[in-house]
Amino acid sequence: MPRYKLTIEYDGTAFHGWQSQPSGQTIQDALQTAFYQFCGCQCIVLGSGRTDAGVHARGQVAHVDLPNSYAPYTIQQAITYYLRPHLISVLSVEEIDDTFHARFSATERSYEYHIINRSTELTLDLNRVWLVHKPLNKDLMRLAAAYLIGKHDFSAFRAQKCQASSPVKTLDELSIRQEGDRLIFFARSRSFLHHQVRNMVGTLKMVGEGKLMPEDVERILHSKDRTQAGPTAPACGLYLMKISYHPRDQ
Amino acid sequence: MPRYKLTIEYDGTAFHGWQSQPSGQTIQDALQTAFYQFCGCQCIVLGSGRTDAGVHARGQVAHVDLPNSYAPYTIQQAITYYLRPHLISVLSVEEIDDTFHARFSATERSYEYHIINRSTELTLDLNRVWLVHKPLNKDLMRLAAAYLIGKHDFSAFRAQKCQASSPVKTLDELSIRQEGDRLIFFARSRSFLHHQVRNMVGTLKMVGEGKLMPEDVERILHSKDRTQAGPTAPACGLYLMKISYHPRDQ
Repeated sequence: MPRYKLTIEYDGTAFHGWQSQPSGQTIQDALQTAFYQFCGCQCIVLGSGRTDAGVHARGQVAHVDLPNSYAPYTIQQAITYYLRPHLISVLSVEEIDDTFHARFSATERSYEYHIINRSTELTLDLNRVWLVHKPLNKDLMRLAAAYLIGKHDFSAFRAQKCQASSPVKTLDELSIRQEGDRLIFFARSRSFLHHQVRNMVGTLKMVGEGKLMPEDVERILHSKDRTQAGPTAPACGLYLMKISYHPRDQ
Repeated sequence: MPRYKLTIEYDGTAFHGWQSQPSGQTIQDALQTAFYQFCGCQCIVLGSGRTDAGVHARGQVAHVDLPNSYAPYTIQQAITYYLRPHLISVLSVEEIDDTFHARFSATERSYEYHIINRSTELTLDLNRVWLVHKPLNKDLMRLAAAYLIGKHDFSAFRAQKCQASSPVKTLDELSIRQEGDRLIFFARSRSFLHHQVRNMVGTLKMVGEGKLMPEDVERILHSKDRTQAGPTAPACGLYLMKISYHPRDQ
């Protein structure tokens, strides 16, 4: 069965996350329904990883095995048609070797987390960012973020229901850039623990507010105790941006 | 009566534009209703200019005269409360001299126009951009844009119902920057004719597609004939970004 690699964008607001559920209100379910309508059989659309309810994607990657061979353009056009009116868009379709696996072949994952930091309500960015009213100190947050970069046991930033075999991850980048009243956190790693990005942002936000000092983040990290870190930042500010693969899988 | 300067952000999608109408479904009507609820009398919220149905604003400016003096923070909090659930946000309120006039004191207006240029459907950017499927040549569009900069009779880019006394305007900037598959047109002038930005973008898009050459835009400008230029670009891609005033009015 020919295998296809899909790159997918979605607005996570109306979905119960990526992962298929009996409710059917998930991105994986919507895609699998579209593939069923296209080729008349059940297909598993296997993602690079789950995203939670409300989390968005600019570059989720999945693979799917189809019963017949189709031109990638035909698949893309058909799936686009059957996905309506869901806010899910298949940005690209490529036929790929069946050794490719969207989850296990991934070498790197990138996320952005968007905060709008102002005293007034959201309009154009509703459900797209975390609105933080209290002014945040970017310099202190950057100092704190530096403690998290590298290979660490990230238990303090791990969701209780996380299924990863080990809490040790290597965080290759955690930067913060500013665009007007918008703060964009960029996190890059081979893989993340469940809620890791949102828990790191929730903790850095407390540093930005002055409720924690940058050095506290080092202490929290070493405590390996989830109760020491800040709350989980809201889902609506998180964007799965890019999944990287070995050049042979690109 | 004390005068206040308001800086306003809105998602224009659900509104019939800025200007008050009998339907009441306008941004000006929503603001005036909120001020009525706040101070118990009819107040005119006078904007720097109109925006059409579906057009957004990041920095519209208006002024309003109130029957009593209030702390700007009090006005902002109250209006924010009464505006719910409209996607209109009063970003700032300042008390200002009554010689200030949001429309007539303005020295410069800036707009952005956003295109997403890709073959696939929109998700996160629905109602926020113009989706153009055919690949656009940015270099040709930039060459064409250069013909429009400066002082010209912009009749070829003027809506029929435009009420400006003269079609001669000075376009100080018309630049195009790229962010991924997004093209952002930035236009800056003391004032614009009705539909001028959307008509310029609609024409430059034809250049980007290869349907017009950059030199054709010079010919179209000199023709002063609206029928020679391209169609009006959709409202949803346009953002009123900033209104500038003399330093004494800032």
